[in-house]
Amino acid sequence: MKATINDVAKLAGVSIKTVSRVINNEPSVRQNTQDKVREAVRQLNYQPNQSARSLAASKSYVVGFVYDNPNAYYIIDMQQGILNACREKHYELLIHPINSKSDSLLDELKEMLRQSRASGLILTPPLSEMQDVIQMLTEADVNMVRVLSGKPYATETPCVFVDDRTAAYQITEHLIAQGHQAIAFFSGDEEHQSTAERLAGYKAALADHNISADVEWVYSGQYSFESGVENCKAMLAKSAKPSAVFACNDEIAAGTLFAARLNGLDVPSDIAIAGFENNPFSRQTWPKLTTAAQPTQDIANEAAELLFRTLQQANKKQPQACENISFEPQLVVREST
Amino acid sequence: MKATINDVAKLAGVSIKTVSRVINNEPSVRQNTQDKVREAVRQLNYQPNQSARSLAASKSYVVGFVYDNPNAYYIIDMQQGILNACREKHYELLIHPINSKSDSLLDELKEMLRQSRASGLILTPPLSEMQDVIQMLTEADVNMVRVLSGKPYATETPCVFVDDRTAAYQITEHLIAQGHQAIAFFSGDEEHQSTAERLAGYKAALADHNISADVEWVYSGQYSFESGVENCKAMLAKSAKPSAVFACNDEIAAGTLFAARLNGLDVPSDIAIAGFENNPFSRQTWPKLTTAAQPTQDIANEAAELLFRTLQQANKKQPQACENISFEPQLVVREST
Repeated sequence: MKATINDVAKLAGVSIKTVSRVINNEPSVRQNTQDKVREAVRQLNYQPNQSARSLAASKSYVVGFVYDNPNAYYIIDMQQGILNACREKHYELLIHPINSKSDSLLDELKEMLRQSRASGLILTPPLSEMQDVIQMLTEADVNMVRVLSGKPYATETPCVFVDDRTAAYQITEHLIAQGHQAIAFFSGDEEHQSTAERLAGYKAALADHNISADVEWVYSGQYSFESGVENCKAMLAKSAKPSAVFACNDEIAAGTLFAARLNGLDVPSDIAIAGFENNPFSRQTWPKLTTAAQPTQDIANEAAELLFRTLQQANKKQPQACENISFEPQLVVREST
Repeated sequence: MKATINDVAKLAGVSIKTVSRVINNEPSVRQNTQDKVREAVRQLNYQPNQSARSLAASKSYVVGFVYDNPNAYYIIDMQQGILNACREKHYELLIHPINSKSDSLLDELKEMLRQSRASGLILTPPLSEMQDVIQMLTEADVNMVRVLSGKPYATETPCVFVDDRTAAYQITEHLIAQGHQAIAFFSGDEEHQSTAERLAGYKAALADHNISADVEWVYSGQYSFESGVENCKAMLAKSAKPSAVFACNDEIAAGTLFAARLNGLDVPSDIAIAGFENNPFSRQTWPKLTTAAQPTQDIANEAAELLFRTLQQANKKQPQACENISFEPQLVVREST
């Protein structure tokens, strides 16, 4: 004896149309009415027919987060921000990490969409920057929001921009203000746009202070603790040693710190070290890391809300206005510089 | 022009029944045949009717991971282990963190099941230990696998046990072997069974070595860095100071290390510190932490595979044999002790 939408309407004392609007999370239903309907749904254990719940019959009240990023704190923060928005809008979150370098990347994404019938996707770098991915999803009429690194520019799909360049400029300027002229740069993965943006901010700050950017001081690497360790060791083996390191994220900075201490150097008196992102890590090293606070949870939350607005427009077959949002990470000075 | 199962069978050169078996991930289809069918599904962008894909018509090829745990590394490792199994079996993963202390916990879980139509759930402590949660899910006929802390015992639903007690015994015995008699214990959240299990292992090791367990040396706390900082400060303010600390996990241990250094103590010569879990954190402190290696990814992988076996039995309406699996974390000695 499965409950029907009629049963729910009767118990809640509202019209079927109102029940439908609540179930579809449409706006302009009073909170009080919403509560009554949800309570009736609960009491009757009513299971809405999926096809009745979405104009796109094959889709569900599930959104997907697709990523290729080894940083545990970044992923957890992204998930948490998306989940907060999902909770409010009664969506569920599906996660799908994927190897962006895989030959079968597009096929895997298609299979994921078939399996999950996700209503929309949130993508982070490097996937959000890959033209073939965007193209395939656009052709498949999949709603998506992309998180991108850089200053905002006009796009065809809604995006959340994180202005890494300006924040990197500020970190570099802070190091210069502390008297440093010889500042090394430890890169993250080169295929991530954020690496290029942070490097551009670093170079711009040096140029604005008439410091020549020594090519030897830019180390290629990955967004990992181990990369920081390796590059710090390589740097200390050379004869000319910088007095400060700007690491592309906090994990690289923590690795740099680790290797510096292993070599008997005091931080910050022998060498200053700055990171990027302000993950919990950066507050748990000794000394604590100077960094740029990237509000990942807020970024994720805004990305999810932007996706929900996009889905609502798509369901109503409204013309899609492409909305973009921008964030700027803020300098946080601590004991490592 | 949507592709049908007939189209797929024709293109792959196999029977409709074989296509169905591949789509339903049933065993005993040769890999070569599986590949041909999946390739045909991809080429035709065939979207199987969900009701044809599962005997339980309202369920999907999605499993859910439900948890209440603030430890980012633990969650990421659990997710990774489950995702590895999902990838192999062509399932998608939905994540749903939930506040285990919430009054509406059961209602929220029901709503989640309605929204997602997950085929089954994986639960970690403390949710996996809550009788009202298990009861509700059992009544709702939801397949689940529970991860539990402790020595294996007979259960009515399939479980993966992690024998924290034995590992905690080994850590304590290691500290005793290093000459420590005065060993403090910094607890995790008291409502997690793992705290009780680790405390029991600690006490058993002390008793076996005729060391009286001083009640004053057991500090209540939470599974967090901050809790380690606070308890270490409280401990150092007392007149009688232990020569070693066994922290209930690595984050507490890292906080303890942080506070000890803040007070000018050298680790391990002034005070030895051991953690638990062997998360990446424990290798990135200075000095590195002695700990117990809890193979979280393997645990999660086994839990997911156990869930898939359970789902297969349920789909075939086979009598459900309740299978349990057990893990024992291993002592890892590093520089902090």
